[in-house]
Amino acid sequence: MNRSDITWNHLQQVRKSAPLVHNITNYVVMNNTANALLALGASPVMAHAKEEVTDMVNIAGSLVINIGTLSPRWVEAMDMAMTAAKKKGIPIIFDPVGAGATPYRTQTVKELLNSNQPDIIRGNASEIIALYSAEARTKGVDSTQKSETASEAALFLSDKYESVVVVSGKVDYIFSGKEVREVKSGAELMTRVTGMGCTASALVGAFAAVIDEPDEAAESAMRVMGIAGELAADKADGPGTLQLYFLDALYTMDKTHIGIKLSDEQM
Amino acid sequence: MNRSDITWNHLQQVRKSAPLVHNITNYVVMNNTANALLALGASPVMAHAKEEVTDMVNIAGSLVINIGTLSPRWVEAMDMAMTAAKKKGIPIIFDPVGAGATPYRTQTVKELLNSNQPDIIRGNASEIIALYSAEARTKGVDSTQKSETASEAALFLSDKYESVVVVSGKVDYIFSGKEVREVKSGAELMTRVTGMGCTASALVGAFAAVIDEPDEAAESAMRVMGIAGELAADKADGPGTLQLYFLDALYTMDKTHIGIKLSDEQM
Amino acid sequence: MNRSDITWNHLQQVRKSAPLVHNITNYVVMNNTANALLALGASPVMAHAKEEVTDMVNIAGSLVINIGTLSPRWVEAMDMAMTAAKKKGIPIIFDPVGAGATPYRTQTVKELLNSNQPDIIRGNASEIIALYSAEARTKGVDSTQKSETASEAALFLSDKYESVVVVSGKVDYIFSGKEVREVKSGAELMTRVTGMGCTASALVGAFAAVIDEPDEAAESAMRVMGIAGELAADKADGPGTLQLYFLDALYTMDKTHIGIKLSDEQM
Repeated sequence: MNRSDITWNHLQQVRKSAPLVHNITNYVVMNNTANALLALGASPVMAHAKEEVTDMVNIAGSLVINIGTLSPRWVEAMDMAMTAAKKKGIPIIFDPVGAGATPYRTQTVKELLNSNQPDIIRGNASEIIALYSAEARTKGVDSTQKSETASEAALFLSDKYESVVVVSGKVDYIFSGKEVREVKSGAELMTRVTGMGCTASALVGAFAAVIDEPDEAAESAMRVMGIAGELAADKADGPGTLQLYFLDALYTMDKTHIGIKLSDEQM
Repeated sequence: MNRSDITWNHLQQVRKSAPLVHNITNYVVMNNTANALLALGASPVMAHAKEEVTDMVNIAGSLVINIGTLSPRWVEAMDMAMTAAKKKGIPIIFDPVGAGATPYRTQTVKELLNSNQPDIIRGNASEIIALYSAEARTKGVDSTQKSETASEAALFLSDKYESVVVVSGKVDYIFSGKEVREVKSGAELMTRVTGMGCTASALVGAFAAVIDEPDEAAESAMRVMGIAGELAADKADGPGTLQLYFLDALYTMDKTHIGIKLSDEQM
Repeated sequence: MNRSDITWNHLQQVRKSAPLVHNITNYVVMNNTANALLALGASPVMAHAKEEVTDMVNIAGSLVINIGTLSPRWVEAMDMAMTAAKKKGIPIIFDPVGAGATPYRTQTVKELLNSNQPDIIRGNASEIIALYSAEARTKGVDSTQKSETASEAALFLSDKYESVVVVSGKVDYIFSGKEVREVKSGAELMTRVTGMGCTASALVGAFAAVIDEPDEAAESAMRVMGIAGELAADKADGPGTLQLYFLDALYTMDKTHIGIKLSDEQM
């Protein structure tokens, strides 16, 4: 099967299974994330109380952790949920929003990742580099050196945590072991809508719940995300309308859309 | 008056009175809920601090409690607010989001309902059945038996809590004592937008603030909700645009829209 | 330069600098606020943990404090962030959402304002009058007297806190010392969308981060806000579509839009 067929096949699996994706995510994007999962065909649940996260993980198909508006209580619940997900064997997707922006944020990410290794880490280049710097610093590597690149950082993290690492950007790079995949789908205007990265992590969660190989799941999710963004950008007059057309595109996406957009990329 | 005239009359009362609806609701839907109340013509307020919920209830026309993203502090505030609402005599609308999904959720709902009986409970079939099972189990009834239906559950809860019980779905059923009303308005695509059930509970809150009979208020609210959904679905290309057209429809709805949509249903 | 040129010049400065605006704001509007800042060309961050607010302020260009869904922990973080912003010398914009609605809300605002004077306070007439009453009462002035107006209140607060005070409404009034500016841009339909006032405060934060005079920043922000609302209302069918067209208008606004809308006002 070519990539277009694989992506379509994976999307159909998500729609057929409608996996329950448990999100512990930030206040800013909860609504978008839930709507994107529903539009895709998955079933979102948001729950963060320590009194119930373990039980919620136990009925979920995957767990998405996003530290965007973190605070100590939420971080404790994230840790509990990640532990439960490891025990149950469902995939964990980790989004280190704003890692590097403050010491608290970087430190929290480091602790969560070292406590329970996620299956997939998804961040933008600066977040991935920040995690690398934080880890590398403890090994005496000079984190201020300019030679650090997102690739080096992603390879390091992928190796250290035995995770697939997705670095989002104009091109998305998916690192697993020594292999690197590229996804070129997407539209510039998506950067003007809040939470598009968080939505990407949530969609990765939906695909990972039904597809066994995390790198395959991540690739299909990032392609579907990017194609929906392109379809939306074709119609949108700005970031406001883009948001809604993006959800419409996730819902209406069929094999033809995927084929056309992926063949456009290859030209 | 026929149902179309009654619905229109009730909607006009809401728009004229612009009741203040106090919501203690979940993070995912707060924005949608506030916008739906504003589009309808009501006045929303969201406040959850124990330091102010009693004072806020004292200036509100109704109280809407929604446990979607519950945690212990919020539950304490919900209990305080419900107690204040009972004391003041304003209607309480209760939305047991996700009851049955985790023991914490089910137990919390049970405690809140037993502490202060709401005027109206609104949930989907599985939430209503979960509450019934939780209550029935304590009486020795085997909650796993397959004969449980949403109707039985709703009648039981309506009787036990002396509440109107709204079971949302393709058809909405409104139970009050032994009477059952049906509302067939609505559109399938609404299930792909997060928080539509929560929005329904909020709209019920607006109608209940100005209309004395809770069953009448619930019926009109569910009809207006459903008709707005139908009007939006007639135009929408997916769940993204549906969301916005739904708000537009709440705002622009007039007697003609109600008449046409309700007569469509009867054919 | 005339006002149209100044506004356009300021907007270009915001877009060129893309200032980081740190928001500690309410759950209801976080998503709108972030999207409005992104559409404008600024860079939003939402962070409220006491463990990181000081660090976040230290990389931000301005701080926007909005008490919409306040609770004690968040208020402590607001106070810490305001203290850090004063120390660093970045502008603080303060939005006293719902001041006057409950004693807790009014008291909290009073304490925060007396602890650290903001550069700009933005509220609607009733919020500004509530703050005035709360302050005035402690000086023996009868707060129930009917002669209180938003103008008196704003002048008092502007003097007491050495702040620019923006009173939003059909016409926005900007008080600084004894000077009063008027902004007539805007559309009635904006009042039916939740968080438009909060968005205004956030946009003021973006302009204040790059323009030295707070009254000038506030005026340009309120004009851009109002013009975007007018452009959106020209196309919208209701408050749902208004929201999205508003974001599109912030993103696409150019010199011509500003010129046309401001000259319309003068006719």
